[in-house]
Amino acid sequence: MKLVRWGESGAEKPGLIDAAGAIRDLSGVVRDIAGPFLAADTLANLRRIDAATLPEVPAGTRLGACVGQVRNFIAIGLNYADHAAETGSPIPAEPILFNKAPSCIVGPNDTVILPKGSAKTDWEVELAIVIGKRASYVHANEALDYVAGYCVCHDVSEREFQLERGGTWTKGKGCPTFGPLGPWLVTPDEVGDVQNLDMWLDVNGERMQTGSTRTMIFDVRQIVSYLSHFMLLEPGDVITTGTPPGVGMGMKPPRYLKSGDVVSLGIAGLGEQRQAVVAFDDWTAKVAAGEPTN
Amino acid sequence: MKLVRWGESGAEKPGLIDAAGAIRDLSGVVRDIAGPFLAADTLANLRRIDAATLPEVPAGTRLGACVGQVRNFIAIGLNYADHAAETGSPIPAEPILFNKAPSCIVGPNDTVILPKGSAKTDWEVELAIVIGKRASYVHANEALDYVAGYCVCHDVSEREFQLERGGTWTKGKGCPTFGPLGPWLVTPDEVGDVQNLDMWLDVNGERMQTGSTRTMIFDVRQIVSYLSHFMLLEPGDVITTGTPPGVGMGMKPPRYLKSGDVVSLGIAGLGEQRQAVVAFDDWTAKVAAGEPTN
Repeated sequence: MKLVRWGESGAEKPGLIDAAGAIRDLSGVVRDIAGPFLAADTLANLRRIDAATLPEVPAGTRLGACVGQVRNFIAIGLNYADHAAETGSPIPAEPILFNKAPSCIVGPNDTVILPKGSAKTDWEVELAIVIGKRASYVHANEALDYVAGYCVCHDVSEREFQLERGGTWTKGKGCPTFGPLGPWLVTPDEVGDVQNLDMWLDVNGERMQTGSTRTMIFDVRQIVSYLSHFMLLEPGDVITTGTPPGVGMGMKPPRYLKSGDVVSLGIAGLGEQRQAVVAFDDWTAKVAAGEPTN
Repeated sequence: MKLVRWGESGAEKPGLIDAAGAIRDLSGVVRDIAGPFLAADTLANLRRIDAATLPEVPAGTRLGACVGQVRNFIAIGLNYADHAAETGSPIPAEPILFNKAPSCIVGPNDTVILPKGSAKTDWEVELAIVIGKRASYVHANEALDYVAGYCVCHDVSEREFQLERGGTWTKGKGCPTFGPLGPWLVTPDEVGDVQNLDMWLDVNGERMQTGSTRTMIFDVRQIVSYLSHFMLLEPGDVITTGTPPGVGMGMKPPRYLKSGDVVSLGIAGLGEQRQAVVAFDDWTAKVAAGEPTN
């Protein structure tokens, strides 16, 4: 099952993708794709619905983030051995954690805004886990029981804010629009082997990242179990699991996003995202002029 | 105005403290003390109510965290010069950020549970800021306009998880029950000079921390402004602002919390907290036996 949230930003409604790829309106059935509505029995009820009986949403409708009301947006750093190498970092002995501000979450095709004064905004295609059930001290063997589904996350990162401003990585990871999620929240039954998904990212049509969830250092089971020993995970929490090689910071010389760039990215079975990149000042000028911003 | 949330955990109702110190029920007026209800006009409406017209809540009723539905629970590290010194750390050039998992938030007098395997759980009395209005790229001179109020935060910290498990401090800051907030959310008009509040913390009646918000390295204005340049702050976000000297880690030899300890702490004008400390295994045994856990 592929779940979506569609409509205007801040007023998204729940939906699902039917066999023909169209959005069907779930707002008569469930309030949102979020927190308590991600419980296994709710998802089982949704699965029993004949999509053909649901209203069809017009093609071209905006997609919001595929999960709403996220509270804890956790990220794992340096979780692909070859990405750790390109950044000159040793392979971590334990998962590296940091947080993305939940306010950075946007739809999969919304504009990515370069923060004021940013010269080093970088891209990162990632697999994100969406938690479906409260998880505390969970063994790795049981960890997948706590997962509602998976989605694509663009872990947009400002490298100067992340690495040169003192302390933890948080400063460069949660700027507004730095967390596109979606297009779909895909339930595990439809994902197949989550540790064998191809992933890619292009900038202006040029392939930058090519990878597979196969080469994660800590896999989904281990990550959910590990985190649950340090904090209570709640339904609707999102964990983004690190990026494969090919980020701009790792290039010689480094290459970063600039106003006017277009980023597209995807993971096999989880769909694709596409974002126009715009500098903060260009974006405020567009908004002031009433022009479209993506 | 002193706002509270009272009743059973997970089902708290809004309230306010009347002139006699009793809780008055606000559930007929506002849905919660949280997010959108922290807007200036909502608070102004609450201020106009004659507390005597509201139902009185029985004395002894449990208090929950004084703000609900928190999404982003941000913390500032090493923000008192003398605390930085006691931990052997240099004074930071810019605020150090980390996150506490929102799921760690509990009431001001709830039990603090030592995590499984913890030997180094430590105390930290802190002033917390509660955001009332969306804040992005805010100048320090205007930063206080975005603050709904202040409260006491016990930033409970597991030092091994924080410092010896790789990466950022997040691992030792968000364990379940590590974020008591309250008793009251106090609006700024009633706080007076937020940079001149005495604060203290006792363990088993012995004074451990004595300090004042006067000795913060980065003050409330600077913190709100600084954060708003890295992330969008939203109503209901909580920022805890660092601790003065006297933590267990800084003692020679270090001293940590153990099952059976009682911590009490307070800040002038913001009220007091009191927590029984219990080891995870003792806590699960009490729950299994149906015994009270605090």
